[in-house]
Amino acid sequence: MNTQIVLASRPIGEPTLNDFRTVSTAIPKPAAGEVLLATKFLSLDPYMRGRMSATKSYAEPVALGGVMVGQTVSEVLESADPTYRTGEIVLSANGWQTHAVAPGKTLRKLDAEIAPVSYALGILGTPGKTAYCALLDIGRPKPGETVVVSAASGAVGSVAGQIAKIKGCRVVGIAGSDEKCTYVTDVLGFDQCINRRKADLPKALAQVCPNGIDVYFDNTAGTILTAVLGLINVGARIPLVGLIEHYNATALPAGPYLGPLLTNRAKIEGFLVSDHSAHSAAFARDVAGWMRDGKLHYKEDVLDGLDKAPQGLIGMLRGENFGKLIVRVS
Amino acid sequence: MNTQIVLASRPIGEPTLNDFRTVSTAIPKPAAGEVLLATKFLSLDPYMRGRMSATKSYAEPVALGGVMVGQTVSEVLESADPTYRTGEIVLSANGWQTHAVAPGKTLRKLDAEIAPVSYALGILGTPGKTAYCALLDIGRPKPGETVVVSAASGAVGSVAGQIAKIKGCRVVGIAGSDEKCTYVTDVLGFDQCINRRKADLPKALAQVCPNGIDVYFDNTAGTILTAVLGLINVGARIPLVGLIEHYNATALPAGPYLGPLLTNRAKIEGFLVSDHSAHSAAFARDVAGWMRDGKLHYKEDVLDGLDKAPQGLIGMLRGENFGKLIVRVS
Repeated sequence: MNTQIVLASRPIGEPTLNDFRTVSTAIPKPAAGEVLLATKFLSLDPYMRGRMSATKSYAEPVALGGVMVGQTVSEVLESADPTYRTGEIVLSANGWQTHAVAPGKTLRKLDAEIAPVSYALGILGTPGKTAYCALLDIGRPKPGETVVVSAASGAVGSVAGQIAKIKGCRVVGIAGSDEKCTYVTDVLGFDQCINRRKADLPKALAQVCPNGIDVYFDNTAGTILTAVLGLINVGARIPLVGLIEHYNATALPAGPYLGPLLTNRAKIEGFLVSDHSAHSAAFARDVAGWMRDGKLHYKEDVLDGLDKAPQGLIGMLRGENFGKLIVRVS
Repeated sequence: MNTQIVLASRPIGEPTLNDFRTVSTAIPKPAAGEVLLATKFLSLDPYMRGRMSATKSYAEPVALGGVMVGQTVSEVLESADPTYRTGEIVLSANGWQTHAVAPGKTLRKLDAEIAPVSYALGILGTPGKTAYCALLDIGRPKPGETVVVSAASGAVGSVAGQIAKIKGCRVVGIAGSDEKCTYVTDVLGFDQCINRRKADLPKALAQVCPNGIDVYFDNTAGTILTAVLGLINVGARIPLVGLIEHYNATALPAGPYLGPLLTNRAKIEGFLVSDHSAHSAAFARDVAGWMRDGKLHYKEDVLDGLDKAPQGLIGMLRGENFGKLIVRVS
């Protein structure tokens, strides 16, 4: 049987376990050009909270009763597409279920010899490419500049900060625990990391950014963005990549006062990775090279079993994960 | 004697007449390379409110007891710089006073044959160039796009909207009275204009922008920016040129929720005209040409006498002026 986790109700504020429901359906059969897949790993990402709401964003919401969406690393069980053979591992977007049929042309083969296949959900996939493109295309960091990264130990922030270090910047992370901060400085090599739960953020940021802030890689918006705006330099660039602080908001939240943008001729620019497919080759080449050279570190936070996915997403929105959150499904 | 208006106290919130003081001093003598000037016209602009506060912005505040700053059109009374002769009219920055000495090299000669000399304080000067550069460099309007302009009958907004029309856009203004709105549509040629004091702004904007908003030329920030963000299209550009709604704020105001920037991959970018001197020649050529062709209309709101300047600035921050506000000093 195919075990699926579907959207039972649209959450108001923080999702609860009751917003999800587990159902069993027959394992589907692949038609010509299709492949039957068994999910090995499911990616959990903050954007999924947006899909649980009725509001159309850049993508359609999940329907009530529909399978929760998500990228997966899957194994070919049966193929009606000559390109794929049983046992091959592919990147797909099968969502929160153990099995799925997908058109062969929507899949990408993964090679376990090059990197653990689950990395395709993180540093070698959408989160890594988000970090690479948003930092380089919008942030445009120059050597010696100060770059601040929120959610610094997460799937996107950890890569963005390490690339900024490779580009010769002074890099300051913001994370949610002392343990995460130690990882960010000692393993990822950021120059400083602030524990946002302990520090007076504007004061702590001013202390570790004596020359102001040139680039802020924004995964969170909210209070961190407000604190950063008080310290930006002339010509600062702020790629707006995530809104973690707001995903559970029940009313339209306020934002920061934008006066500092004017006085500093600075910009905030929204980013979606799907606009940047032109940079896929450069991303793959650069990130693979940096990993080979030991310049990029990566940490996974693995939950065992599809049934852990709902609590995993709820916890991620609270900042409870440590590293890229994935679910080992089989 | 030289009559000067100086900053008597730093306003909290809206300035009052008591924040200004009129003093008389001796008329200064020009040293070698300097020129003695009599002020003919003084420009009043919203940025002056910022200079009355102690906070350093992109420029130093006016000192307590110091002469209020501002651009002037002045007449040469006495010259110790061979470049200038008595009776010539120049653009200077002498501030709120009847006389001043200035180094010849800081002046620019004005030719009354080409345009009324006071236009150098408006459409042919800093406000016009602000409109031109912020719209074209950051807004980058394309034919058929929808451009919204706040403070649409003002010195900057009126020029920005007319240039957007010249570039083939559908242009919607926002202004503070029915009279201003009629001027904006019937004289300036905008497609629509919304009276922000009467309309439910989000609803009215949605009605006149059925295809969304591609460029928002923002002179105000605040509630208008919030309403606009609900309607922006993918790739929208928002030059942030002024913060009129906030200049009298006594505490750091909140800003808009920035989620729409992310979902639409849109940007807000601060603008200061002093960064754009490279475009001075193109600005002068284009705007002079458009005026000659009758494609650019311009309206001055003239106060008579330097003593009217304090109330003029106070009223401008309330939106009481209609057109570019200047003071005829002599």
